[in-house]
Amino acid sequence: MIEQVPTLAQLVKQLQQVPYLASKNVYRVAHYFLTLDQKRMQQLCKILLEAQENVIPCQICFVWKEKDRNCAYCDSPRKDRSTICVVETWQELMAIEKTGGYHGVYHLLGGAICPLNGIGPENLTIDQLVKRMSSEIKEIILATNQTPEGEATASYIAAKLKDWPLKITCLARGIPVGSSLEYMDRVTVFKALSERRLF
Amino acid sequence: MIEQVPTLAQLVKQLQQVPYLASKNVYRVAHYFLTLDQKRMQQLCKILLEAQENVIPCQICFVWKEKDRNCAYCDSPRKDRSTICVVETWQELMAIEKTGGYHGVYHLLGGAICPLNGIGPENLTIDQLVKRMSSEIKEIILATNQTPEGEATASYIAAKLKDWPLKITCLARGIPVGSSLEYMDRVTVFKALSERRLF
Repeated sequence: MIEQVPTLAQLVKQLQQVPYLASKNVYRVAHYFLTLDQKRMQQLCKILLEAQENVIPCQICFVWKEKDRNCAYCDSPRKDRSTICVVETWQELMAIEKTGGYHGVYHLLGGAICPLNGIGPENLTIDQLVKRMSSEIKEIILATNQTPEGEATASYIAAKLKDWPLKITCLARGIPVGSSLEYMDRVTVFKALSERRLF
Repeated sequence: MIEQVPTLAQLVKQLQQVPYLASKNVYRVAHYFLTLDQKRMQQLCKILLEAQENVIPCQICFVWKEKDRNCAYCDSPRKDRSTICVVETWQELMAIEKTGGYHGVYHLLGGAICPLNGIGPENLTIDQLVKRMSSEIKEIILATNQTPEGEATASYIAAKLKDWPLKITCLARGIPVGSSLEYMDRVTVFKALSERRLF
């Protein structure tokens, strides 16, 4: 019966295209938008349009930046430019930033190599990463995901950078903090065991 | 570091207010909006503003309707106006509509009685439901949720309507289709057993 309320049907159609919004929540979110007052709604639309206009990727590290501002990483004097952390997407970068434990710069790949989905190295910013290499850079942290695609991407990048005199590292694998061994999969336990460290 | 990209920080803040959008998905959805082209973004904002302007609750059943159109239920000659299905929210109405098995009209309460959250009968459309009563109405289906709040609301409404000569029904309780007994909670199994039907 939603076809009899065409404006609402249009709204639902738009929301169905938003990723990570579970289909069972689309109606709930549509309901939320309809209950916003006019001022709030105008503000939301203003922010959406502004974001689309003003937020662009940095041409060095490909992290989102304000059009008329410097990049928060590449152009910051407080960041250690000798370490580059390579991540797949902006969401992973935010996960690392939240730890507060990293003070270097980033390189955002834009995804991982995945031939089945037609994503090859040329679709990512790997060439641009290679172009960034200089004697100033001492370490590359390959922080791609622990998935077959993420690991393949890390290997590909490591091979590309092998002629540069730098340390290539990756994130530690093992049991997540707060988890019990019992509920971990076999491969994780095996890695945690074989890559054990001194206590 | 998101504070250094204020437009993006604003967008994230807006998205954090959207219900049912998991906090870990906020960055992903923000990323999605930033990658939309200008035309798509303008269209989205147009639809949001139009929906806010044109979609209003029907003054009889409180279901969303187009401002300049009739209500798809109350004003439809194809709906059986002798049966009113009482639901908490629009999302539950959509769940019933999806079954294609109901041809009566609705009454949308706007929630359930929940004293802990400060929601009393006066915050819902229960008075308006009582005002809808007429000799034309033969059955009220109390399709509130199977939660303490939903059941309390159903009891309250049933008490309010007890002087009207009509059939008050509620949804069947039991084992969901496709589920195995083993994984059901004790109360559900008990209800399924005590409210068993002829095969």
